[in-house]
Amino acid sequence: MNRIDNLQPSLSAILLLACPDRRGLVSRLAHFIFEHGGNILDLDEHVDAGSGMFFIRVSWSMDGFSIPASDLEEVFRPLGREFQARWSIHTAETRERVALFVSKYDHCLQEILWRHRTGEFQIDIPLIISNHPDLGPLARHYGIAFHVYPITSENKLDQEQRELELLRAHRIDTVVLARYMQVLSDRFVDAMPERVINIHHSFLPAFSGGNPYRQAFERGVKIIGATSHYVTAELDEGPIIEQDIVRISHKDTLPDLVRKGRDLERLVLARALSRHVEHRVLVNGRKTIVFE
Amino acid sequence: MNRIDNLQPSLSAILLLACPDRRGLVSRLAHFIFEHGGNILDLDEHVDAGSGMFFIRVSWSMDGFSIPASDLEEVFRPLGREFQARWSIHTAETRERVALFVSKYDHCLQEILWRHRTGEFQIDIPLIISNHPDLGPLARHYGIAFHVYPITSENKLDQEQRELELLRAHRIDTVVLARYMQVLSDRFVDAMPERVINIHHSFLPAFSGGNPYRQAFERGVKIIGATSHYVTAELDEGPIIEQDIVRISHKDTLPDLVRKGRDLERLVLARALSRHVEHRVLVNGRKTIVFE
Amino acid sequence: MNRIDNLQPSLSAILLLACPDRRGLVSRLAHFIFEHGGNILDLDEHVDAGSGMFFIRVSWSMDGFSIPASDLEEVFRPLGREFQARWSIHTAETRERVALFVSKYDHCLQEILWRHRTGEFQIDIPLIISNHPDLGPLARHYGIAFHVYPITSENKLDQEQRELELLRAHRIDTVVLARYMQVLSDRFVDAMPERVINIHHSFLPAFSGGNPYRQAFERGVKIIGATSHYVTAELDEGPIIEQDIVRISHKDTLPDLVRKGRDLERLVLARALSRHVEHRVLVNGRKTIVFE
Amino acid sequence: MNRIDNLQPSLSAILLLACPDRRGLVSRLAHFIFEHGGNILDLDEHVDAGSGMFFIRVSWSMDGFSIPASDLEEVFRPLGREFQARWSIHTAETRERVALFVSKYDHCLQEILWRHRTGEFQIDIPLIISNHPDLGPLARHYGIAFHVYPITSENKLDQEQRELELLRAHRIDTVVLARYMQVLSDRFVDAMPERVINIHHSFLPAFSGGNPYRQAFERGVKIIGATSHYVTAELDEGPIIEQDIVRISHKDTLPDLVRKGRDLERLVLARALSRHVEHRVLVNGRKTIVFE
Repeated sequence: MNRIDNLQPSLSAILLLACPDRRGLVSRLAHFIFEHGGNILDLDEHVDAGSGMFFIRVSWSMDGFSIPASDLEEVFRPLGREFQARWSIHTAETRERVALFVSKYDHCLQEILWRHRTGEFQIDIPLIISNHPDLGPLARHYGIAFHVYPITSENKLDQEQRELELLRAHRIDTVVLARYMQVLSDRFVDAMPERVINIHHSFLPAFSGGNPYRQAFERGVKIIGATSHYVTAELDEGPIIEQDIVRISHKDTLPDLVRKGRDLERLVLARALSRHVEHRVLVNGRKTIVFE
Repeated sequence: MNRIDNLQPSLSAILLLACPDRRGLVSRLAHFIFEHGGNILDLDEHVDAGSGMFFIRVSWSMDGFSIPASDLEEVFRPLGREFQARWSIHTAETRERVALFVSKYDHCLQEILWRHRTGEFQIDIPLIISNHPDLGPLARHYGIAFHVYPITSENKLDQEQRELELLRAHRIDTVVLARYMQVLSDRFVDAMPERVINIHHSFLPAFSGGNPYRQAFERGVKIIGATSHYVTAELDEGPIIEQDIVRISHKDTLPDLVRKGRDLERLVLARALSRHVEHRVLVNGRKTIVFE
Repeated sequence: MNRIDNLQPSLSAILLLACPDRRGLVSRLAHFIFEHGGNILDLDEHVDAGSGMFFIRVSWSMDGFSIPASDLEEVFRPLGREFQARWSIHTAETRERVALFVSKYDHCLQEILWRHRTGEFQIDIPLIISNHPDLGPLARHYGIAFHVYPITSENKLDQEQRELELLRAHRIDTVVLARYMQVLSDRFVDAMPERVINIHHSFLPAFSGGNPYRQAFERGVKIIGATSHYVTAELDEGPIIEQDIVRISHKDTLPDLVRKGRDLERLVLARALSRHVEHRVLVNGRKTIVFE
Repeated sequence: MNRIDNLQPSLSAILLLACPDRRGLVSRLAHFIFEHGGNILDLDEHVDAGSGMFFIRVSWSMDGFSIPASDLEEVFRPLGREFQARWSIHTAETRERVALFVSKYDHCLQEILWRHRTGEFQIDIPLIISNHPDLGPLARHYGIAFHVYPITSENKLDQEQRELELLRAHRIDTVVLARYMQVLSDRFVDAMPERVINIHHSFLPAFSGGNPYRQAFERGVKIIGATSHYVTAELDEGPIIEQDIVRISHKDTLPDLVRKGRDLERLVLARALSRHVEHRVLVNGRKTIVFE
């Protein structure tokens, strides 16, 4: 593959599929693409020995492909059913729509918006939601609608309901919690399964919960980390997409940890989002398959 | 894939193939495996946009496969010819045979022999060649034949001729220069194309040639590296298989660099050898494809 | 030390000193601070065996110190002369003044300005100079004066002269070339010795000169890097302050290298600038001492 | 400093000291060395703001020093008492004596013995203790006495008592648990405070306790680690000396994690031991100061 698919997505399609493993899956899928005149640009597959599941991501050129993008899902459906697969197909017509949730910290938001403007993500970001007004000016600088929903313990479910309605109205596929300092309710999470990406400021499962930098500082670790994962009902327990670390020493104060960790958080979240919107991630129980 | 192929190689086959890209290659190859009853364990492919070349590594279970390992090459040959491919097929019958070349430093030799004994490499190491007797005891500790060929400017070509004959007599596939302190002649290199793996103690192309640690020390770099590559006629210019680095500071003396670099050299060489003998490496001009 | 000096610089002083090594230097310097009522917050020293030179950075609390900041240099001068030292003393009164030079790429500028606004650097940035108007809006967003000096081969020396005058008028201590795409003349460099910091988008000394990402792509390295260094008359040969790397693979296209390298460049430049303005860097011939 | 102290320890002395912070400590200590004719080779200090404690490591040349090594502790004692310090002085006469505890895994033992033979550690290793006979041949290859003390729940305290007597008889300073698969009793730990170094095969505090690789595999982390720490009464809770990590992916099986982790374990343990025997580590409550 030559990543032409990333640069000119209108010319390619991506199939992401998980199903029970059996003989001939690759052959059948590759043949499906070949018989309709597609040229495979990139193919990654993985068989999980524990669960006996087969996972694949394959992209092909739509140039000369005999099925129009709009019909692709329908034509593929019988094969997906035969394989008892969870699957999705992505083309230029299904450009990912992403909403960002923030509170007061600007570093993750800034990073994503800056990268977005450079064209790194092939997505639309129609709106930003926050429980505080602070980052409104940054949103406006990038020309993105900014909605404030203050959250209290009393109004939380109501406000979330309004947020969900806004997300639906804008046909949002994915929510990114870019240091959003609220725990989402189970109802919210259930409404967006495998569709909410969080950044946690520790090397999970170490230091889950609150104040991970303080926990790390007090434990005296020599390395701190950041973890991006899908949000599930259990706090900080969702499938991990990406992690990275940075070395610290006894010289580093707690504010130093926060500062060094900030650089990690924005890179790790940006990489996780990138993998997700390029349709490189499949969830396998508590774990992820990430096709690089 | 589940790396069963690594653990029980007798049960799997690996095809490594490079050819001009065209529609249907994956489909044809996957079908070849499927129609003979094979189940694909792992498949990686890459298309190089610059050269228009297609590269693939595919492994499949030989359990229930209708072609015996001994006939596999012959049965596959027409397909390889049709695709104008360079290709090789590896099964338990083609277990890689590796010779190690050393001089006086023991760290790379020690690392490879120790890993070999843990079962990490699915290879045979029938012999070690050196231009010095120093490492004979280590070879004997691991029960491997140790041959000494002292090299002078006068006898070099003759000694190399004897070495090549020994390699042929033992049907050696791959030579590993584990800090062998002699430059091989072009004739030797030509006799083993893409079959001689070297470890250079710098982050190539920086500090090629002699005394790279001294060069690095005098330049004042903040990071040093090691590079493992296939040997070609041009010194330190062969296709790179693996590189890694370690951070240094002004506190590090030249001996510190040598010591830190030593740890890099053995890990980088071991990783490169591992990739090579698992048939994960394809050469693409001056570069390599390494299927992880 | 507890980095209180970084957070509340008005309360501390920093001495940076290099001189020929001899017995009693630390004792004399520590006594100088003690006898005037200072409490040492942080002390780092290094003796370079090759050159026989002694390097030290020591910071102390000015709370209760008997010499006012404004007299400190004068009181210290006899000791510096006795030690035949190059030295400088930094207090709140000598807050570093930095000018940024840019062309069209915004990532390094954006990174520095964002970090500056978070309070990470204890500096003033009175102005940005560019040979193109493109980044004016970004400068304005951060409220910093933006001066455009288009450069041609004909007007280069004249324009540089104007730039130097502007730097002098604003009492600029340090110039940061944040992907400034012009080679400075020797005269400019001579006017700002050890005061111009560049970011080169390769792991120097590999791939010096133009188009380093293309060079790296064509050589097939498995790791790319970025290097921040002081600018000297010899292109890309100045003392290195900081380097870092990122792993790449055969899957990465040239644009992928540029994108991954961009993330390196901004972090490496920011770290180098941070070390420089915290007065942690001493030049030792072609090399640097960086007290972390 | 030029690390001459590491290479020729007979020519240098090292003072390691912790005490409540106050004005003039560095001045007094540097003066003590200077007035007796010593030249400081290396000095590192740290003030912990939280506890108000001062930590220092200073090494100086004994060439021309007026106090003989044998009298050094006695001469220094009044100063240590005045500062209410915990302190130790190390010269060639106090070469560290280390015992290794192992079970069946050979990788950490092999690494330490190989490095020891290269002269990397300035220590004596008079003996190896194991609860299994398996690694006897490796011990003999390196010419080191090998003692087997099988452990059951019934005989544990008795066997430990015999081990402690053996350690005392050989004047052992430090015990290294090189993948020793037994939990030491509190009594044993109390007998060797800050003197027993363990390697735990996870990135603590994640995956403490048993089977950390399995825990990591099941949680689906993208990075695994290893941690070397001083052993305290609380399992896996002692002050951390060194940690490092390696990246993994969904392709890695549990055996792959074990194999990759093995390379980490031996490097992390070797680095921790190196720091410890070079007297670079001071314990600060649950944390360590490590002077690099």
